[in-house]
Amino acid sequence: MEEERAFSTGKLFQSLGNFCRKFLFRILSVGPIPSHIAFIMDGNRRYAKKNDLEEGSGHKAGFITLMSMLKYCYELGVKHVTIYAFSIENFKRKPEEVQYVMDLMQEKIEGLLKEESIVNQYGIRVYFIGNLKLLNEPVRAATERAMIATANNTKCVLLICVAYTSSDEIVHAVQESCRHKWDEIRTSNGVKKDKWDDIVESKGLKIDKGDEIQELNGVESEEKLEECRVIQLVDLEKHMYMAVAPDPDILIRSSGETRLSNFLLWQSTNTLLSCPRALWPDMGLWHFVWAVLNFQQKYSYLEKKKKQL
Amino acid sequence: MEEERAFSTGKLFQSLGNFCRKFLFRILSVGPIPSHIAFIMDGNRRYAKKNDLEEGSGHKAGFITLMSMLKYCYELGVKHVTIYAFSIENFKRKPEEVQYVMDLMQEKIEGLLKEESIVNQYGIRVYFIGNLKLLNEPVRAATERAMIATANNTKCVLLICVAYTSSDEIVHAVQESCRHKWDEIRTSNGVKKDKWDDIVESKGLKIDKGDEIQELNGVESEEKLEECRVIQLVDLEKHMYMAVAPDPDILIRSSGETRLSNFLLWQSTNTLLSCPRALWPDMGLWHFVWAVLNFQQKYSYLEKKKKQL
Repeated sequence: MEEERAFSTGKLFQSLGNFCRKFLFRILSVGPIPSHIAFIMDGNRRYAKKNDLEEGSGHKAGFITLMSMLKYCYELGVKHVTIYAFSIENFKRKPEEVQYVMDLMQEKIEGLLKEESIVNQYGIRVYFIGNLKLLNEPVRAATERAMIATANNTKCVLLICVAYTSSDEIVHAVQESCRHKWDEIRTSNGVKKDKWDDIVESKGLKIDKGDEIQELNGVESEEKLEECRVIQLVDLEKHMYMAVAPDPDILIRSSGETRLSNFLLWQSTNTLLSCPRALWPDMGLWHFVWAVLNFQQKYSYLEKKKKQL
Repeated sequence: MEEERAFSTGKLFQSLGNFCRKFLFRILSVGPIPSHIAFIMDGNRRYAKKNDLEEGSGHKAGFITLMSMLKYCYELGVKHVTIYAFSIENFKRKPEEVQYVMDLMQEKIEGLLKEESIVNQYGIRVYFIGNLKLLNEPVRAATERAMIATANNTKCVLLICVAYTSSDEIVHAVQESCRHKWDEIRTSNGVKKDKWDDIVESKGLKIDKGDEIQELNGVESEEKLEECRVIQLVDLEKHMYMAVAPDPDILIRSSGETRLSNFLLWQSTNTLLSCPRALWPDMGLWHFVWAVLNFQQKYSYLEKKKKQL
């Protein structure tokens, strides 16, 4: 009887909390809503240490906070959420910790696909962002399954950065751009082929049957080829892992750290950084609301500035 | 008589101030000293507006603050200081404002070279960082003169970012890396030539007298060539404008803005951001000291983290 009453009271408080949060979000929705929020979930290990828990318990507590934050984002109407789950640098941690996080990640990814998961609740499309080849095979396969299973969800997007660093993303984009440019130059079909033909014809250069250029001399033609070869900003943009989402409006990093730690450097040009002191598992609704209010307060100034530039 | 006394009192206070600052810096020097501090000098125009001054007066007041900050840095023993003087985006401002800033910049650059300037006082080597071709000719020529004139100074380094954005820096580094790689591949001298010879010989490919490869077929040789062509992180690092300095330890942005605004994105991976609310001309010694104290407080944690990774 006692237990039943306590259970009912708990449910009542939960409902009341949900109601208040939704009411608060309705008010916030009068202002501009960020279209993309990114999170660096810092402080899981320190939380475990502070509370005399095993190291793994910090990550578990952190996962609960992550679920709450995702719920807040999607309830408020934020379309894109990015989280920094595991950096390439993290592979250098103790092997048992890496293994623990990998196992946890696999379990959680598989959990995402269950009927009752947050992914199905909000219609979320999941992307895994990073150098996925670096993951162990079961995790890599799980990321692939999750991406395929959610490919038709259109309401919200969750980008999970694993085996990711910004430098790696940029270098990868450069390599892809070069490869693309190279193929484009040599291809015997399409627009570039016509450009090549123009150059080749204008210089009276020989072409063999396979349309491979056999001779290429003369400074002028070299210069023209150089023009075709130059990698531009748009090439890099196109080949970034994060090209599937707009740049983040807000980046929230917990535990009071004010560093980017090689996360979304390319995309953070106009991103507002919010660095509450709370460790990640201690983060709550108010930290989230505070970051959004700060964005709303600066929004018109930022828009004005964009026009002024 | 009255004036003379006021003058003496003023001088006395100044000396006392200098003494206190130097004493404070001696205490700070017990802890680790950042080797590189970067500044985004935000709020000059808002300062002018707030104080009912002409727009240009904000920039002038900002220049005085800049001189103080440089003095603090070099007195404390910070070897590298970088300032964001003018971004590529700023060229889109009203033509008269751009012209005003360009004129001011030219005047100040020429001032830097005078005998009594801060540059000669502290033995500062000056670099101008950015796409300098975008500057008007008198300013560009002044930047070049300043870089040549200070090339032998070795005590401290001042990096002035003009006509700069990080995306432009990265794209420039990519283009330089590609050009370099391309030259390396085609060169008929040096190590790469030997690599090419190995590939060419192993595949029985023809080479003409000028050592230009005439035929190149077969998947395997393509793969080997691909290896030579791939741009790596080190190539990009080497071709960044900012390659002349270590990554910044602290980035201070005034006026409470917590964005990077396309400034040193590549270099900010482990940089501590400090965003005091004061507008740039209102920035003072305490804002500087606070940022350094914050760096010192986090230093051992960061070092430990670096080892942990």
